[in-house]
Amino acid sequence: MAADQPHPTVSFQTHPDRYKHLMLSVDGPIARISLNVLEEGGLRPDDYTLKLNSYDVGVDIELADAVQRLRFEHPEVACVILTSAISGVFCSGANIFMLGTSAHAFKVNFCKYTNETRLYIEDASENSGQRYIAALNGVASGGGYELPLACEEIYLVDDRRSAVALPEVPFLGVLPGTGGLTRVVDKRKVRRDRADIFSTLAEGIKGKRAVKWNLVDGVYPLSKFDDAIQARASEIAGDGHTGNVGITLPNITADVDEDGNRTYEHVTLTFGPEPRVATLTVKAPTSVPDLPANPADLGDTWWALKAFRELDDALLHLRFNHLGTGLVLLKTEGDAANVLATDAQLLANQDNWYVREVTLNMKRVLKRLDLTAKTFFALIEEGSAFAGSLLEVALAADRQYMFEEDGNAIGLSGLNFGTFPMSNGLTRLETRFLGEPEHPAKLKDAIGESIDADDAMDLGLVTDAYDDIDWEDEMRLVIEERASMSPDALTGMEANLRFAGPETMETKIFGRLTAWQNWIFQRPNAVGPKGALTLYGRPETAEYDFNRT
Amino acid sequence: MAADQPHPTVSFQTHPDRYKHLMLSVDGPIARISLNVLEEGGLRPDDYTLKLNSYDVGVDIELADAVQRLRFEHPEVACVILTSAISGVFCSGANIFMLGTSAHAFKVNFCKYTNETRLYIEDASENSGQRYIAALNGVASGGGYELPLACEEIYLVDDRRSAVALPEVPFLGVLPGTGGLTRVVDKRKVRRDRADIFSTLAEGIKGKRAVKWNLVDGVYPLSKFDDAIQARASEIAGDGHTGNVGITLPNITADVDEDGNRTYEHVTLTFGPEPRVATLTVKAPTSVPDLPANPADLGDTWWALKAFRELDDALLHLRFNHLGTGLVLLKTEGDAANVLATDAQLLANQDNWYVREVTLNMKRVLKRLDLTAKTFFALIEEGSAFAGSLLEVALAADRQYMFEEDGNAIGLSGLNFGTFPMSNGLTRLETRFLGEPEHPAKLKDAIGESIDADDAMDLGLVTDAYDDIDWEDEMRLVIEERASMSPDALTGMEANLRFAGPETMETKIFGRLTAWQNWIFQRPNAVGPKGALTLYGRPETAEYDFNRT
Repeated sequence: MAADQPHPTVSFQTHPDRYKHLMLSVDGPIARISLNVLEEGGLRPDDYTLKLNSYDVGVDIELADAVQRLRFEHPEVACVILTSAISGVFCSGANIFMLGTSAHAFKVNFCKYTNETRLYIEDASENSGQRYIAALNGVASGGGYELPLACEEIYLVDDRRSAVALPEVPFLGVLPGTGGLTRVVDKRKVRRDRADIFSTLAEGIKGKRAVKWNLVDGVYPLSKFDDAIQARASEIAGDGHTGNVGITLPNITADVDEDGNRTYEHVTLTFGPEPRVATLTVKAPTSVPDLPANPADLGDTWWALKAFRELDDALLHLRFNHLGTGLVLLKTEGDAANVLATDAQLLANQDNWYVREVTLNMKRVLKRLDLTAKTFFALIEEGSAFAGSLLEVALAADRQYMFEEDGNAIGLSGLNFGTFPMSNGLTRLETRFLGEPEHPAKLKDAIGESIDADDAMDLGLVTDAYDDIDWEDEMRLVIEERASMSPDALTGMEANLRFAGPETMETKIFGRLTAWQNWIFQRPNAVGPKGALTLYGRPETAEYDFNRT
Repeated sequence: MAADQPHPTVSFQTHPDRYKHLMLSVDGPIARISLNVLEEGGLRPDDYTLKLNSYDVGVDIELADAVQRLRFEHPEVACVILTSAISGVFCSGANIFMLGTSAHAFKVNFCKYTNETRLYIEDASENSGQRYIAALNGVASGGGYELPLACEEIYLVDDRRSAVALPEVPFLGVLPGTGGLTRVVDKRKVRRDRADIFSTLAEGIKGKRAVKWNLVDGVYPLSKFDDAIQARASEIAGDGHTGNVGITLPNITADVDEDGNRTYEHVTLTFGPEPRVATLTVKAPTSVPDLPANPADLGDTWWALKAFRELDDALLHLRFNHLGTGLVLLKTEGDAANVLATDAQLLANQDNWYVREVTLNMKRVLKRLDLTAKTFFALIEEGSAFAGSLLEVALAADRQYMFEEDGNAIGLSGLNFGTFPMSNGLTRLETRFLGEPEHPAKLKDAIGESIDADDAMDLGLVTDAYDDIDWEDEMRLVIEERASMSPDALTGMEANLRFAGPETMETKIFGRLTAWQNWIFQRPNAVGPKGALTLYGRPETAEYDFNRT
């Protein structure tokens, strides 16, 4: 099956040399990302023009690329300034005409992706020592303010016209739904009555009031703005992470056949034969190189980095370009011992920047898996390698089915016990065993052991196990059954069952804010013929059905 | 404006003498609520028949009444058995034909109300020593299992056919959305892969497997079921709460004029003159009786009980019967000193069952206010009485506007500091001052003081204050502006801004699960002409658009 979405196929690989919308520069310990969105450079240029630094997913793909590259290619950087190259405008948010002409599923996928990118900015600030500050040298409106909210600090020019604003509710009848409402009250802890005023005030808030309400951390007059930002960045960055020398991140590539099947070096993604079913396979390393004295000498070729970058790319293709796929079978192949040996290297070298970045990337990719709105069943078959970091792939699945046979085993490594927290802050084992909180610690005794189907059932690590008499029939049955159910009900169900336990700002964004936004994205008051999103920029004004739900 | 909803006006007052669907009996320390739903007794009997103990909101109103009456009229009861009077069927959940023929807003309001009733059951188990056990003497399906999930313990008859089930996803293409998915993984902590299987298995799970998966706490063969339940109930109840002698709860009544305006003893609810705007006024006590040696001698006449019961009734009318109202102005009238004196009585007598129940009822009503999908602006005008427990009404509002004038003041009481937690587990002051966590404790110094507009602004207790030159214009402006915005966007915005801070099972149910269900309740796969909810019970099968969102 080829790509089956009602929009042009989206590619997620880019490079600063090819950026249309961003300028990325590095000056010692300080990097600068400047938004300079090319008006005619949208993914569907016939449908919309990216005026006033408004963005579509193409812009956000460049931003995600820049954030990722800074971590790997410029690990010496300790502060990143996010600003605009357009005078008087920082960013006016998601392009409204793009939203108005996009299908519901595309809007939902787009918002999720931009949300993830913003969380990656926060992850870099928190865990990689690359602290982002937003330098708003002009109006920051809608998503254009939600993006700075993901930075550690926000500074606004005080020029009597530049404001921060969330005009979605009054102008568009939708929410500031890419983290905005949540970050205003939960991250910046703006008093809720003020947040209510701010979120309904189309023109936004500027100057000292923006500081008083904690919408920004400071304001400076235009004449002093650049110096103040530079001074603050220098203060944060200090000498930077001296001694960290970056690697080069080539683009991820795959062979793609006429049916849309993708073959990467370590990952394959194939479609069918059952309708609406795909198979995503990750291969274990074929060999495990000794870690060089400078681990970064492995560059982008280390399995732990490359396999997970490929997995990430495959997940994004599944989301954006294969809407018709509802069920993904997760498989692994190869020598589990090589996964465990790699995991041991990762765990033993967390004080090295490169190894830590590789691990953090794995964490983010696994979260992307948790957050993908497809059903995942892990199929643990003969020749599988579901051990350690690859066992996380199975634990992220909605169910785990294991083939009972001598030699087919799963395994645990130290990485299963804290290195890869989910959005809820717990490990996948802790989330799985919420009802037996002492169980994950006990499982540590089994690290490195070969766990066969019987033991895996006893330890609660798999859902069910079948021998060769039943395996094929049972798998056919569960696959057919799942692929026949309402895709919407499954999305809602999975969004609720996957994240038991505590909630965090992150789960609030994806669970609460996103769900409400998706609801509103279906409502005639937003997307009907007379809805506010539909009519934005036209002479007619929206007509609402004022009944409250 | 008269009731403006597309369904018959719903009344929320009932009495066991008039129950159509429940049998309520009390035997010493043990009460029994038996579902015995009258098939032809639905609120819209032409549209659906309440077969197999399925329910509509009329059934749930009786259940809410029974739970409330047990607390006040039978405080000696320490264990409540929830069971069925129909052989082989405990409850088959919300009536599907009712759902299929209801407007979107009604479905949403219905689900919210049933969710609240279930939380009241949990509140009674946790805080009133009336512990609920579910005795499933037959199939418990859909909402018929979500209801037992709100009980402390669940027992199922083991007769080879009675199962617990959540068949919403496979049968109807919607969610077990009244707490089901959340309580399965967050309260009963069922392993998430098992929860996934259970929530897609139409026929459900019975017998020992139901126990093993923690879906129920025990199973008994039919021959031993009644005795086992009785024995467990006796064990829980002991001698009951001996010495507690209940009061009588007469129905709440209001004068209703031709425009739908409601006048209760302590509460008025009026509509207009601005379109889509209502005014809800709570009056302070006109006098404060000395608390009798047995406080329960005050019966239902105590202001602290009656005013909040009236407020509750008014909120429910607003929700169900006045969909067109989007903005509610909250006002108070009378002598604030009387509120503070009553608060002092409440606080000093928390060891008395009656006083505690009155306080718990106030807590629940205030939560109902937080959860009502209308904008609330508190207008603190001349002659207002926003003090202590009535200040909570203002703090529950989205904004607080105060008229600057000598003598117009607000006040704090000890009840503002922990007695009335919101769904998020925090007080309204803690939620408001999330960014200044030390501030609520400091506010204790102001307990009992008369806080004028200047001080209220300084203390952060009100949003804005205006003198008589500006008040009328400003209020007209903010009211007009709010009433003009998209009601859907406001609902989503308020659902996000009101509950900053930690999440609980309760906020997960209302924020995450409900929002996803509301989304699905809009999707053609559920409610379109070929949707599963629409076609349930007809010969055609649903046809899904399988694109995943």
